[in-house]
Amino acid sequence: MKRKPLILLTNDDSIKAPGLRALIEIVKPFGKVVVVAPDRPQSGTAHAVTVNHPLRLHEIAKEKDYEEYSCTGTPADCVKLAFKVVLKRRADFLFSGINHGTNSSINIIYSGTMAAVFEGALAGVSSAGFSLADYRLDADFRSSAPYIKKIVSEVIKNRLPDGVCLNVNIPAIPENRIKGIKVCRQAEGTWQEDFVERTDPQGRKYYWMTGVFVKTGHGKDTDEWAMDNRYIAVVPVQFDFTANKAVKPITNWFI
Amino acid sequence: MKRKPLILLTNDDSIKAPGLRALIEIVKPFGKVVVVAPDRPQSGTAHAVTVNHPLRLHEIAKEKDYEEYSCTGTPADCVKLAFKVVLKRRADFLFSGINHGTNSSINIIYSGTMAAVFEGALAGVSSAGFSLADYRLDADFRSSAPYIKKIVSEVIKNRLPDGVCLNVNIPAIPENRIKGIKVCRQAEGTWQEDFVERTDPQGRKYYWMTGVFVKTGHGKDTDEWAMDNRYIAVVPVQFDFTANKAVKPITNWFI
Repeated sequence: MKRKPLILLTNDDSIKAPGLRALIEIVKPFGKVVVVAPDRPQSGTAHAVTVNHPLRLHEIAKEKDYEEYSCTGTPADCVKLAFKVVLKRRADFLFSGINHGTNSSINIIYSGTMAAVFEGALAGVSSAGFSLADYRLDADFRSSAPYIKKIVSEVIKNRLPDGVCLNVNIPAIPENRIKGIKVCRQAEGTWQEDFVERTDPQGRKYYWMTGVFVKTGHGKDTDEWAMDNRYIAVVPVQFDFTANKAVKPITNWFI
Repeated sequence: MKRKPLILLTNDDSIKAPGLRALIEIVKPFGKVVVVAPDRPQSGTAHAVTVNHPLRLHEIAKEKDYEEYSCTGTPADCVKLAFKVVLKRRADFLFSGINHGTNSSINIIYSGTMAAVFEGALAGVSSAGFSLADYRLDADFRSSAPYIKKIVSEVIKNRLPDGVCLNVNIPAIPENRIKGIKVCRQAEGTWQEDFVERTDPQGRKYYWMTGVFVKTGHGKDTDEWAMDNRYIAVVPVQFDFTANKAVKPITNWFI
């Protein structure tokens, strides 16, 4: 008898986030599901890990094919702790999200959702992250459900190549307006920060970071183009950051 | 009259770290230097940014060609705040480090030192990070100084291609044993975590993260090989994380 796949779920918006609840419902039919997610929101923590404080786990549910735990750490901590302490055997798959807000283009670099996915891939586990382009807590995750189900089922059927994971971004539009799934590359883009300067009651200055995301490339093969054109954007990403094309020219600097 | 280059320095070990002091001394002769660094150690914060708390800046020194500030944020925060609030004109170059401990191989993904470098590159500034393979506070940075000086001078002379920055890792050996500079790719490697389980006085479990770095690739073109063989490893890195080779096969999943 074939064993059910063991699937780890996590996110960065916390164990209570509606996006995680939506993902749990989508993934449950595919296997034994274990959720290990942060006990508080961790957006913008990127790939931070906790080595100077201890971590705690809190059991929320433990049934035959479903377990749920909150953790005091970051999304990357959650995955490491899940792999080593919570799971009784090696996870077969990891899914992260559904994030409240996009992780397309350069947003991936700040993303706790995608840090968890990279941790999965680093451990050799086929992993994908899902993000909806709607930051609101009451965002509507229903329209994306059939597409996420399709992507989850393809990841389970095909598994991902070594060192590759998926960054999936979903436009916030009704299901009947979504044109389909488009596999693409990470769009060029950056945040133009601004800082709001305030003065505290003691007369000392402080600064609030704000900013706007600016697309700097508009290619039809990018995630930003796909989302603007009502597609779900799937970008295969890797944690080998080498800029291969630059190796030779920079080698010449030192000859 | 040609204006002196404006050079931003930062790190993740804090404004007080000896590695930053060593880098300041190396870079000062090259231009006007402005240091904006975290006011406390931020190792392992990766690319975290602070949006839910305000940031504060503290002026430490302000001379004609040298300024120094500490900041309450992460390394990425320091760079964003420096670009928008501290610097009166666009920075020409950004250097980060010298980190106490290596950021070779997959360590780059957890690195605040390199997050600062990516922030520089994202803003179109030629940027490089330096790390010494010695975690100790009293590590000896002198033997690497001539090599860092050489790399800094080449970055200033040539500038880096768009979207590319440098991850420089230095073996902790005496200067006369260093064989030279090798431009290479990021080695395959991963952390094998372990968690030490303890029980608090209230009887609740908690976990300390520990781990060992494991090389999983040993190619002669990698940073790990270079350092093992007494070279200073220079890896050109990029923030486009697309796994280009995987785009076509994964596209086929959805046809």
